[in-house]
Amino acid sequence: MAGRDVVLCECFARDGLQHEPEFVATADKIALIDMFTTAGFARVEATSYSHPAQVPAFRDATEVLKGILRGRGVFYKATCPNLRAVRRALDDLAVNAGANELSLLVSATEAHTERNLRTTRAAQWEAVAAMAEASRGRARLVGVISMAFGCPFDGEVDPGRVAADAAQFAELGAEILTLGDTIGTATPRRVKEVFARVKAAAPDIIPVAHFHDTRGSGIANCLAALDVGCTYFDSAFGGVGGHPSQIEYGAGMTGNVATEDLVNIMEELGVSTGLDLERVMDASRQCEAVLGRQLESRVARSGFGLKAGKGRLWTSQQ
Amino acid sequence: MAGRDVVLCECFARDGLQHEPEFVATADKIALIDMFTTAGFARVEATSYSHPAQVPAFRDATEVLKGILRGRGVFYKATCPNLRAVRRALDDLAVNAGANELSLLVSATEAHTERNLRTTRAAQWEAVAAMAEASRGRARLVGVISMAFGCPFDGEVDPGRVAADAAQFAELGAEILTLGDTIGTATPRRVKEVFARVKAAAPDIIPVAHFHDTRGSGIANCLAALDVGCTYFDSAFGGVGGHPSQIEYGAGMTGNVATEDLVNIMEELGVSTGLDLERVMDASRQCEAVLGRQLESRVARSGFGLKAGKGRLWTSQQ
Repeated sequence: MAGRDVVLCECFARDGLQHEPEFVATADKIALIDMFTTAGFARVEATSYSHPAQVPAFRDATEVLKGILRGRGVFYKATCPNLRAVRRALDDLAVNAGANELSLLVSATEAHTERNLRTTRAAQWEAVAAMAEASRGRARLVGVISMAFGCPFDGEVDPGRVAADAAQFAELGAEILTLGDTIGTATPRRVKEVFARVKAAAPDIIPVAHFHDTRGSGIANCLAALDVGCTYFDSAFGGVGGHPSQIEYGAGMTGNVATEDLVNIMEELGVSTGLDLERVMDASRQCEAVLGRQLESRVARSGFGLKAGKGRLWTSQQ
Repeated sequence: MAGRDVVLCECFARDGLQHEPEFVATADKIALIDMFTTAGFARVEATSYSHPAQVPAFRDATEVLKGILRGRGVFYKATCPNLRAVRRALDDLAVNAGANELSLLVSATEAHTERNLRTTRAAQWEAVAAMAEASRGRARLVGVISMAFGCPFDGEVDPGRVAADAAQFAELGAEILTLGDTIGTATPRRVKEVFARVKAAAPDIIPVAHFHDTRGSGIANCLAALDVGCTYFDSAFGGVGGHPSQIEYGAGMTGNVATEDLVNIMEELGVSTGLDLERVMDASRQCEAVLGRQLESRVARSGFGLKAGKGRLWTSQQ
């Protein structure tokens, strides 16, 4: 946290790449993560220990984590969907080449748990408890609650259930809690309500705003979280990743909050991200180069604003 | 205002098309504006009486205004850059085929006035006074202050100057005042400050939030305006238009707040737009069809959220 007001976790390499149809070369992933580290990110979502056959995008999890530079005090997060994944993560950690942050996920609703995880919430909590038990004291644990602000099957989600899940994660030793607006239906009002309920139920856990920009409200929701004291945010360069949308035509088109745009509004508000803004833009360009297409960040097209852009955007000569 | 909490002005046909390289056929413009009317917009920015040689996109201003259907109580706005434009607008009005709302513009900064309007603020105010004088009592007058939240040449803009301009417009008989974040550098905090200053200086004028989404903060800024009592908003389908950005590569890529996304978050918040949401989506698709490309709205890709989408987005069969 030193020298910054908010901690952004750069999610391009995992959440961002999860639904990419083409495999991104391991060397490209490593080079990108190194750019994120040198730009000053204090947390980087690096990969997932998903089953390589099920999620081939991350079949190189171990190689990526072995290949990247380590920033001092930087946390590199890996997603662990099950106990087998945790064991792989711990094996890598044992040779000092792993992720020093592991994330474990539940969904806030039964319908989504059944549909997405093919299990029940009770069974998933049992699995998460075993995963937490295995990894406790070896890596920083991050709890993730997906569908925390709405579910495509169940609609509205009870903030009380999210708060109870938060307390459960705290009890299992999670220091950090990612609250996911997985389908991009949160509103600033709902964000404030859920964060307040979580804080009351689990005052010691650090909440993370993980908002998808599926409907254009991602930045507004981040600022609502900031308003109620949230200092940890997830985002991805170019706004890639997130959850496939329900309209076939645009599936995957609208994903995470774009890092460039989130950094811009924070800096414009005088909220320090602790990032090197020129290197942020370099990383932005490199993410587009690696994926071979223009991504969804507005700031990638327009440049930073008045404060971040150093007071004047154009000269009279232009 | 009957049956709605907020009044959205659909700006696609003017602000949206201003920088389009290809001329959009008059019949297409008329059909689109008719779709906006039937979707329930209470204000529609229809065209501009700019000099046809200087802004050929609107060389058909008179034909467009003659061709469109008129919704009961709906205001069709035309931009008037000078006295000659006002006279053309009044000529059309005299045969009952004009715009019943005329907008007159000043810029909040000398540097932008010199660069963009090739004059001084004092001279521009004289011109606007003459234009207001000529049209008073014939059409509803809309004052526009561009660069109200920041200027590419001068940087920060004094909210006191914007408030003084607001009072000046009120004195000239403007009932409505459009506050333009022309280059997309506003923040929610600055929005609240400027709106408060304008309200204090010109309590009877209706302020309009006209925010460009150049840096991804457009929706957040609209919600900040809503928070301080603003009920009039400008947006454009697909987020087209706005101000060309300063990075050549992306010029024109990031424009207005996307109507679809603004409608969605308003409805999700329980703030009624008074619009027929299915027809909003029809109009969205037609705007993309007319321009022949995918535009920048997220909701156009993902569909409306939980409330607007009637409680459940997906069925378990999907």
